[in-house]
Amino acid sequence: MAVRDAVVEKTIMALLDGRKYKTLKEMLATMNPADIAAVFEKLDRERIPILFRLLPKETAADAFAELDPATQETLIVGFSDTELREVVSELFVDDAADLVEEMPANVVKRILAQADPQKRREINEILRYPENSAGSIMTTEYISLHPDETVAQAIERIRKTGVNKETIYTCYVTEGRKLVGTVSVKDLLLTRDDDAPVSSIMDGNVISVGTLTDQEEVAQTLSRYNFLAMPVVDTDGRMVGIVTFDDAMDVIEEETTEDIEIMAGITPSEKTYLRSNALDLFKHRIPWLMLLMVSATFTSMIITGFESALAAQVVLTAFIPMLMDTGGNSGSQASVTIIRALSLGELEFRDLPGVVWKEIQTAVLCGVALAALCFLKIMTIDRLLLGNSAITPMTAFVVCTTMAVTVLIAKVVGCTLPMCAKKVGFDPAVMASPFITTIVDALSLLVYFGITSALLFR
Amino acid sequence: MAVRDAVVEKTIMALLDGRKYKTLKEMLATMNPADIAAVFEKLDRERIPILFRLLPKETAADAFAELDPATQETLIVGFSDTELREVVSELFVDDAADLVEEMPANVVKRILAQADPQKRREINEILRYPENSAGSIMTTEYISLHPDETVAQAIERIRKTGVNKETIYTCYVTEGRKLVGTVSVKDLLLTRDDDAPVSSIMDGNVISVGTLTDQEEVAQTLSRYNFLAMPVVDTDGRMVGIVTFDDAMDVIEEETTEDIEIMAGITPSEKTYLRSNALDLFKHRIPWLMLLMVSATFTSMIITGFESALAAQVVLTAFIPMLMDTGGNSGSQASVTIIRALSLGELEFRDLPGVVWKEIQTAVLCGVALAALCFLKIMTIDRLLLGNSAITPMTAFVVCTTMAVTVLIAKVVGCTLPMCAKKVGFDPAVMASPFITTIVDALSLLVYFGITSALLFR
Repeated sequence: MAVRDAVVEKTIMALLDGRKYKTLKEMLATMNPADIAAVFEKLDRERIPILFRLLPKETAADAFAELDPATQETLIVGFSDTELREVVSELFVDDAADLVEEMPANVVKRILAQADPQKRREINEILRYPENSAGSIMTTEYISLHPDETVAQAIERIRKTGVNKETIYTCYVTEGRKLVGTVSVKDLLLTRDDDAPVSSIMDGNVISVGTLTDQEEVAQTLSRYNFLAMPVVDTDGRMVGIVTFDDAMDVIEEETTEDIEIMAGITPSEKTYLRSNALDLFKHRIPWLMLLMVSATFTSMIITGFESALAAQVVLTAFIPMLMDTGGNSGSQASVTIIRALSLGELEFRDLPGVVWKEIQTAVLCGVALAALCFLKIMTIDRLLLGNSAITPMTAFVVCTTMAVTVLIAKVVGCTLPMCAKKVGFDPAVMASPFITTIVDALSLLVYFGITSALLFR
Repeated sequence: MAVRDAVVEKTIMALLDGRKYKTLKEMLATMNPADIAAVFEKLDRERIPILFRLLPKETAADAFAELDPATQETLIVGFSDTELREVVSELFVDDAADLVEEMPANVVKRILAQADPQKRREINEILRYPENSAGSIMTTEYISLHPDETVAQAIERIRKTGVNKETIYTCYVTEGRKLVGTVSVKDLLLTRDDDAPVSSIMDGNVISVGTLTDQEEVAQTLSRYNFLAMPVVDTDGRMVGIVTFDDAMDVIEEETTEDIEIMAGITPSEKTYLRSNALDLFKHRIPWLMLLMVSATFTSMIITGFESALAAQVVLTAFIPMLMDTGGNSGSQASVTIIRALSLGELEFRDLPGVVWKEIQTAVLCGVALAALCFLKIMTIDRLLLGNSAITPMTAFVVCTTMAVTVLIAKVVGCTLPMCAKKVGFDPAVMASPFITTIVDALSLLVYFGITSALLFR
């Protein structure tokens, strides 16, 4: 894919340089809107309008919808009113609403001025809903049928009105705007009785989401039921729009990236990596780094408290990184697993006792195995091979016991915190590695020095 | 959703207890296969066959396909040959192939014996392809049209043959089995000229994947082009099957979970968290914990090498956790961002120089900001507030310089390793937090002691 992209890109640049517009036009006519958009993203600003004017009309709107906001703005600024009207009229309502949301006020004014009154009303409708809600990502273009229509009438209606609808394959049966059933084009086509009423073949057991449902839940529900589109209804059960599967796939990708970023201690960003500059990256990364650095004050306080013990037996210091890292890794294994299960809807708060019990069992298995291996490692590699005679079996025992206890604490903290965060309405992803590591560090040091004091310095 | 599930579950249990089979049957007839499957997963083994026999025939096969392998096996073992034949004949070929892959040999034998010869051949066809390839997840049921057919003939053909095809909405135009174009049912329906040949309305600019293409790439390509289904062709360009959007969504979910698990140092598992017992979790978590623990030998060696310096100034030890954690966090921010961008196809190896340069700039910004804050924190909190008089401005300076250098190293290592891993064919996700942390720990200690020796112990 990528290699082909690079070749296409080079060819287009060369054709642009040589002003071979006819060839370019023919070439662009064979290309898919997503591929065309990818080429646009790599063009110099001044060449974008030239290339755009060479696109076939239908492709132009589809490619436009796939562009990133900066490129869209460049284009709109260069558009004549006629050009703008053409693009806006070809855009699906949800894409038009996205556009209006991203553009600066003066550009928005021009866009709305060029939209026909019907479209303008629909765009404003979508913009009324809070960000990330079903209402804000839905499109108001869908096919609605009446339960008393016959199959033949329904097919005829689709053939007449379908051209502007984002998906025609699932039709929504409404009665007084209330959603009472769905019927697929497949069922319509495969029904041999043209005179049967739509109500006789529709699926009356409707699954829908509310306008305020979170977009992530919308996408997951659609994926669960393998729907082509998810109907969105208002609080009175009246049909207001649909969210199509391709938008749901984008939502899933976006939300997953956000989860992964938060888990790594990064404030989520809407820009892709290549489009972010160093300052953007800095702004999204520094808050957690600062917070975590300052919270490391606890670990230094603990170490300072045991200064004399450490001064007497410096060998104890050598194992601090290993203990802290093993604790951190154990904890993040648990927290990341739980966070993913929560975001896939596999776990709920009521599962907490079972989860904790399972993590305790796992921790005991891991702790014992690690402690045994660690003892072996310390006595052979560290003591014999590296000849560190300060290491006694007692030291090794203290380190290994600490390790087992740390793993236990880490796993329990790692599974409990994300579930509690979810319960009180925080994003569980915040409770991932960096956060867990900081807590587990402090706890593992306390355990270490506690056991050391009890066994080595009696 | 979850609350409703719990209510439905309780109602069904109560109806089963009361042997109200008629009511149950009516209730099940209104439910969606995915919801029915969710109820099955929570039933006792002996009740599963009872409930299954109450399902309407069409729903039964759909719900069966959604069950997890263990439940499927319980059901098949209890099926009569006739029941098994009915379910197998209703399953889509790709679901049947998945089933055959998951079941033990004796069950597979029974399944294949009950499949009709055509289906058996198609199942075996799919099973020939390597795991996670397009061939292994595709279905061989799609609608193919001939370029010379008229629109009316094509619609008639779909109406006759469509019932067994997994998706009818995109039809594939083939000539001597070679894929020459695609045409959507939407275009067929909206064309007003019934006598136009299919070739005149088809999109001849076909995008397809090969049978051996990795399933993740298949899903991403489908998502990029917003396709309902992705055609799969063999090396000679002959059409062999399609991958539908719902299967692509499942692949994306699965691959993302796998990425996230690997990033947290967990060997990926196919079982969900709730279905894994402690031993499963242990087996998937212990390898990385052991590997990372043993590799911590380097950090202890480094610390042991500087034993005398640490014994002289124990205050230096107190900052080790903070330096290590900040390094680890900085590194994992970079590596996780890069890994995600790689898996979304946003970055390629040729972007490496640009990425490294951007990370260096970001690291300088983060490093300077952190060092400044750290100096402030050490001099106020640690020295004044906590009264640790062993801390001199020189100590603070050494710690802060180490921090800035560590952040720089961490970011560069964090962005470089995943890209190089990808280049040589490893999974970049392996180069995430745990791995980066171990490397950065050792490097940050070397920097710390290097700077300490140069500045404090001249």
